[in-house]
Amino acid sequence: MVVAIQQVKHVSGTNITSPKGYKAIGIHCGLKHKKKDLAVLLSEVPASVAGVFTTNAIQAAPLIVSKEVVQKGKMQAIIINSGNANACTGKQGMLDALTMQEKTAQKFGIESDLVGVASTGVIGEKLNMEPLLKGIEMLIPVDSLEGSIQFSQAILTTDTVMKNTVYRIEIDGKEVMIAGTAKGSGMIEPNMATMLGFITTDAEIESVHLQEALKVVTDITFNSITVDGDTSTNDMVLVLANGMAGNSSLTPAHPDWNAFLYTLHAVAQDLAKMIAKDGEGATKLIEVEVNGAVSNLEARKIAKTVVGSPLVKTAVFGCDANWGRIIAAVGYSGASVDPQGISIKIGETLVVKDGEPVIFSEEQLLLYLKQPEVKIYVDLNKGSGHGIAWGCDLTYDYVQINASYRS
Amino acid sequence: MVVAIQQVKHVSGTNITSPKGYKAIGIHCGLKHKKKDLAVLLSEVPASVAGVFTTNAIQAAPLIVSKEVVQKGKMQAIIINSGNANACTGKQGMLDALTMQEKTAQKFGIESDLVGVASTGVIGEKLNMEPLLKGIEMLIPVDSLEGSIQFSQAILTTDTVMKNTVYRIEIDGKEVMIAGTAKGSGMIEPNMATMLGFITTDAEIESVHLQEALKVVTDITFNSITVDGDTSTNDMVLVLANGMAGNSSLTPAHPDWNAFLYTLHAVAQDLAKMIAKDGEGATKLIEVEVNGAVSNLEARKIAKTVVGSPLVKTAVFGCDANWGRIIAAVGYSGASVDPQGISIKIGETLVVKDGEPVIFSEEQLLLYLKQPEVKIYVDLNKGSGHGIAWGCDLTYDYVQINASYRS
Repeated sequence: MVVAIQQVKHVSGTNITSPKGYKAIGIHCGLKHKKKDLAVLLSEVPASVAGVFTTNAIQAAPLIVSKEVVQKGKMQAIIINSGNANACTGKQGMLDALTMQEKTAQKFGIESDLVGVASTGVIGEKLNMEPLLKGIEMLIPVDSLEGSIQFSQAILTTDTVMKNTVYRIEIDGKEVMIAGTAKGSGMIEPNMATMLGFITTDAEIESVHLQEALKVVTDITFNSITVDGDTSTNDMVLVLANGMAGNSSLTPAHPDWNAFLYTLHAVAQDLAKMIAKDGEGATKLIEVEVNGAVSNLEARKIAKTVVGSPLVKTAVFGCDANWGRIIAAVGYSGASVDPQGISIKIGETLVVKDGEPVIFSEEQLLLYLKQPEVKIYVDLNKGSGHGIAWGCDLTYDYVQINASYRS
Repeated sequence: MVVAIQQVKHVSGTNITSPKGYKAIGIHCGLKHKKKDLAVLLSEVPASVAGVFTTNAIQAAPLIVSKEVVQKGKMQAIIINSGNANACTGKQGMLDALTMQEKTAQKFGIESDLVGVASTGVIGEKLNMEPLLKGIEMLIPVDSLEGSIQFSQAILTTDTVMKNTVYRIEIDGKEVMIAGTAKGSGMIEPNMATMLGFITTDAEIESVHLQEALKVVTDITFNSITVDGDTSTNDMVLVLANGMAGNSSLTPAHPDWNAFLYTLHAVAQDLAKMIAKDGEGATKLIEVEVNGAVSNLEARKIAKTVVGSPLVKTAVFGCDANWGRIIAAVGYSGASVDPQGISIKIGETLVVKDGEPVIFSEEQLLLYLKQPEVKIYVDLNKGSGHGIAWGCDLTYDYVQINASYRS
């Protein structure tokens, strides 16, 4: 992706309602004990929509509802509950998701097939519809930082922090904003895991091109993170583009297409890294960059295998420069590798060169491994394939969180 | 595998040297701080040999040496060290493995191409050859329970228990023994992980048929366990058959072929389950049985995915009947499933029927989940495919063991 970087500005202090024409809010309706558990995002006008969804063969009812809306190409509102995934809940679950859609449409006076539905939380328990429907009645979305914060909080489950990012670009000389918010902490694995991502923009773009852009970006961002290898039944990323910036419609032939793609990528990558860093129980973000693979696809596969290895994750947690586990993971990734060609750096320290150990300062590496972000570089010297994946360390707290999630 | 079960007897109190003509010993030579770290198994006469090896693209030097011996079809001794994997050690590592082979051959007065070599421990550190070669000189294998126990201890790394099993069958009216010992605790994943398995028998069988039998048995035993999904650089299972029982040579056409296969299967399954149960930090053995899949292969794939899910593993550790995680893992296994057809039992308690929750007693299940062995049954109602996989729970101790392995 070639792009004039100076066009793109990361914006701080703003939020999911930063692009023109969006409002949001989050409240506590009673699905969770005390925390916020219901959120809505609303666009002033119907927006082009693109979506990517879990690859799990078992898909929750809200996904099925939202997919249908995405297929029609327009969305104006998204209703999201946390605390209950409405997954494996049979016919009643499907009825409940449709009721959420219908009630949200009524509340905001829009067509029900312009409403997306998302749920996250425990699998296999029926939704408690009474508080949920009362909650929908109480939603008053606003175009403010406060509304965005409450929205971002209400979609969380075991997350410890909100995940927000905003960028500004110029398209046709018009200011265009792209903003994103996400949740995701456990059950995180490539190809859509328990992760919800919502991206808003005021760019003008048809849904077919928006979908094209989202697909390109998702593979190298949301699908390149892993926390525990568990792929969820509920995950989705939705992008709404309401056209209120007034640019001429974006297509791959538009002179600013690459700038748009670059910025969408920046938003998605920010969110993906925030999700990885906030992995359940995590103390560190791990980034694995692979170069010299036979293809980008193989490079990403290796990067994801290394960052997903429980032994690499525990070694990073323990600040142990155990590169043997890194090279073992490279070996079992299934990618084409030549053992004698592999070099590995942990941070800036070379630990393996051409498949053989290099003498290095354990003390210096120990200091590096104590940082909150650890980078591992693998060079295969086989081709020009490049890929990056993100994950987190595996800690006592991951076990604690997941040994007692329902209780 | 149809077999007259009454032929087969599990034997207690005996060991890897139970079959006729085998001796073994294990000692401390100085690779580890205090524990035993060097072992040898010796057959009175050259034995037919079969082997399966790691699928990791990065293979340790001793594997390359042992593979060559297996290809020639005969083996008489196996020299094993623990504490150092001799993996990713370059040309020096290869020379060291060949030196181990050569010195063992000299010590016992046999040809060096009849000596297998195995190593397990830390990756990427060169072998400390001085104590190792002195150790080989000190090895005095014996045909006794004591020798077998010392052998079984000396091959362990983070294992907490020895893994031994012995069976007796009759072939041609002759008593035949098959015995096995194994190590393996972490980095355990299908297709040969950090696992060493050694099986001895006094049956007469050519190596080509022994290899055939081992392949059949490995897929449904050693390759059906997982501890952490990490596939090692060093793993192997070797079977020696020295023919000293005096039966007529076993082939698939032999009337007792199935009895032999059944018994080899029993030995391998015992060892595989012991390895899974002794997974690093584990408190429980988890067995997942899948029925009704479109094929046995898919059933095994699903079983392995469920038993390998960190979220299922932590839930079992926490005695949480969180079947949502089980069904989610079934869904992302990549196998062909129909959500409405899935039923799940935890122990004898039905928790999901035809894809929907069943009301069950949480208290009763809590009691069940506190047992040291937890069984999960998944029925897909799609075909007649059947498969079982074994694993263990994910605990605080797994993190502790692996956050500080090298220190």
